[in-house]
Amino acid sequence: MELRLLKGTNDYLPKEQIIRSRIKEILTETFELYSYRPLETPILEFYDILASKYAGGAEILKETYNLTDQGERKLALRYDLTVPLSRVIGMNPHLKMPFKRYEIGKVFRDGPVKLGRVREFTQCDVDIIGIKSMQAEAELIALANDVFNRLNIDVKFEINNRKILSGILLQSGFSDEDLPSAILSLDKLKKIGRVGVEAELEEKGLKGEPLEKSFKLLDKTGSTSEILKFLSDSITQELALDGLKEIEELFKLLKIMSIPDDKVKFIPSLARGLEIYTATVFEAFAIKSPITSSLAGGGRYDEIIRKFLQTDKLFPAVGISFGLEPIYETLLSLDEKIDEKNRVLVISIKSDEIALQITSKLRSENIITEYDFRQKGVSKSLDYANTEKFTWIIIIGPKEVKERKYTLKNMETGEENKISVKEIINTINNQP
Amino acid sequence: MELRLLKGTNDYLPKEQIIRSRIKEILTETFELYSYRPLETPILEFYDILASKYAGGAEILKETYNLTDQGERKLALRYDLTVPLSRVIGMNPHLKMPFKRYEIGKVFRDGPVKLGRVREFTQCDVDIIGIKSMQAEAELIALANDVFNRLNIDVKFEINNRKILSGILLQSGFSDEDLPSAILSLDKLKKIGRVGVEAELEEKGLKGEPLEKSFKLLDKTGSTSEILKFLSDSITQELALDGLKEIEELFKLLKIMSIPDDKVKFIPSLARGLEIYTATVFEAFAIKSPITSSLAGGGRYDEIIRKFLQTDKLFPAVGISFGLEPIYETLLSLDEKIDEKNRVLVISIKSDEIALQITSKLRSENIITEYDFRQKGVSKSLDYANTEKFTWIIIIGPKEVKERKYTLKNMETGEENKISVKEIINTINNQP
Repeated sequence: MELRLLKGTNDYLPKEQIIRSRIKEILTETFELYSYRPLETPILEFYDILASKYAGGAEILKETYNLTDQGERKLALRYDLTVPLSRVIGMNPHLKMPFKRYEIGKVFRDGPVKLGRVREFTQCDVDIIGIKSMQAEAELIALANDVFNRLNIDVKFEINNRKILSGILLQSGFSDEDLPSAILSLDKLKKIGRVGVEAELEEKGLKGEPLEKSFKLLDKTGSTSEILKFLSDSITQELALDGLKEIEELFKLLKIMSIPDDKVKFIPSLARGLEIYTATVFEAFAIKSPITSSLAGGGRYDEIIRKFLQTDKLFPAVGISFGLEPIYETLLSLDEKIDEKNRVLVISIKSDEIALQITSKLRSENIITEYDFRQKGVSKSLDYANTEKFTWIIIIGPKEVKERKYTLKNMETGEENKISVKEIINTINNQP
Repeated sequence: MELRLLKGTNDYLPKEQIIRSRIKEILTETFELYSYRPLETPILEFYDILASKYAGGAEILKETYNLTDQGERKLALRYDLTVPLSRVIGMNPHLKMPFKRYEIGKVFRDGPVKLGRVREFTQCDVDIIGIKSMQAEAELIALANDVFNRLNIDVKFEINNRKILSGILLQSGFSDEDLPSAILSLDKLKKIGRVGVEAELEEKGLKGEPLEKSFKLLDKTGSTSEILKFLSDSITQELALDGLKEIEELFKLLKIMSIPDDKVKFIPSLARGLEIYTATVFEAFAIKSPITSSLAGGGRYDEIIRKFLQTDKLFPAVGISFGLEPIYETLLSLDEKIDEKNRVLVISIKSDEIALQITSKLRSENIITEYDFRQKGVSKSLDYANTEKFTWIIIIGPKEVKERKYTLKNMETGEENKISVKEIINTINNQP
């Protein structure tokens, strides 16, 4: 048997996992600050539910891991957290609306592995179901802004409304049938430029006047208010006008909620995927990092829950999803320190009994303490304390035990003192 | 398509998940206080690794969910966190020993569902690899004691050493081959009583003098020191004597680490499963709860990592596993309140702009705040605040906006004041 991991899955050793845990902690704290409540759904679901017509689309279905259990039931591993959320809403008709929940959990895709695409990964989703007003979008963008402030990552939000993009294409002469394909290509404007998009569209047979007209409207540069002004002067199509009204409302709300102007930008070509979004879409990008993929993204999807549940009842919904992996990579690239907590290493030299007692005492004072089991001599223990970045070490030997004064060393300043346990606790607790 | 869940899997709605999250938070905090570091391993593994000879035994293998992916690889869902830990140790030979890690994660068993046995559940494991001394066991028991103190659950630890149990059986006349089967039955002494155990053993053909002799030694009641004294006077078998020495050392260490005497009890018949434990075993039970299953349990397993890795190198190991479900059930049965954080509901009466601003302001002060999207009138909002147990509500209407004084109501005391935003923040922050 050769020890190995499936490509696209990872072991996260402590060094990396400490940072990942801290990111999840900040996400959770902020989600709760905004009064979102936790939900946990299973990883194993019945295949027919995950595969239902309106769930994820054919492409995702192809990548769904499926299995048969001992009872010959056809099961699958969930590929996102949105289908389980829709199922929960369907199965719990007495849930009060709006339903504000977050879920952080593993999802699985049996697809090709490449940079930024793995087979088992963690999604961090926040959704609000039951609110038609743009206040829901504003709240989620404010929440994301707060998350990135806490993480010390400078971000910019790109915001659009799918009604505007669709409306512009229709007004320019594209047909309803052209839309999905045209939008898919236009969404890449930032990545592959106008020439790239044109080439892609031509291959699909989409060219000529409608394309020229669309670009004229979508290519406008300037501030958000300049682009809004330009579009409201140029747009006649009803859907686009409706979207424009919504986006104006959203930017007004963001101002009310004190999101700085220069953090939010209206990008009329932004589409953010195809299948589910019905109106607002947004993505957050790090400003000073080589990581170009978005760190979070979301939007309004007013139709999928209703379609999934095959009901006439409306379930307006807005959600945002944070990417644990790109956030982790961004933090590394920014050399951003995640506050490591102060940690103490207790080193015993043939004085285990007292050393164990002092270890217990420190822990009872809520000081993170490691009892050094190595016992291979002080210099080896000091090496370990250095590599593992302990803040403090305490050395306890027969001489110290006799005097009831123990050596406390600050590993950052090098300062060393022989003091009582009480003084040790005070010194550590008064450390800034 | 009928919406449904696979039996043995659960949706945890916010009401329950808030408590589950709080339990995980307390576990994580305590694990870190004792200087254990987080590890995350994948849920999907190659089948041959999970199924390898020394991993989980035939019974678990039968219950392992397996699947074939698009690349025709035979995969499986992990059924515990110990095999992945062993694999990580094998694949990372440069990991420094002792390796102290914790992992909280989902595991899967395709087995029968009954009370307390589900198909997808969360394991919370803490392990220390590389330490032969009983100090490792003592640390994990102290850690567990700390966890249950923080959870306000009064527990008792039952502790044994498998060498004692095996040694007593051998001394009484059982053969090496009888051991596994005899231990399996004797472990049920507490559950089914001596008569039940005898019946079970007789069915297996184990009866007569060896059984009588074993019971004589295992049945002794009294305090831990009385039983220790009795056994050290009666035992001659070498393995049992070795185990006795270890358990004496462990109880001495627990005293040094200030674990109260009445919390730890030596139970010579305790076996805690069969396959992996080589010496110390322990389980924690709630004292004042109808939940009779153990809340945590563990022990020393010095052989499995070496066997799994097929190496001669020794990997002494001690671990403890906490059960999220029985802990949750115990908390409910004790009517133990999990501190809910203070939460504020902001209610706007046609004053959305100011209400949204105040909501943002409160959140920037780290006060958990929900903006009431319902807007169906104050009395509906009050109902909601009552059901959902908000600590405070703030009412913001045109009159309040004019006066710049807003109604703050304490939902617990009923006290109501019209005060400024600054005063609101002070009042909430000074709430005990």
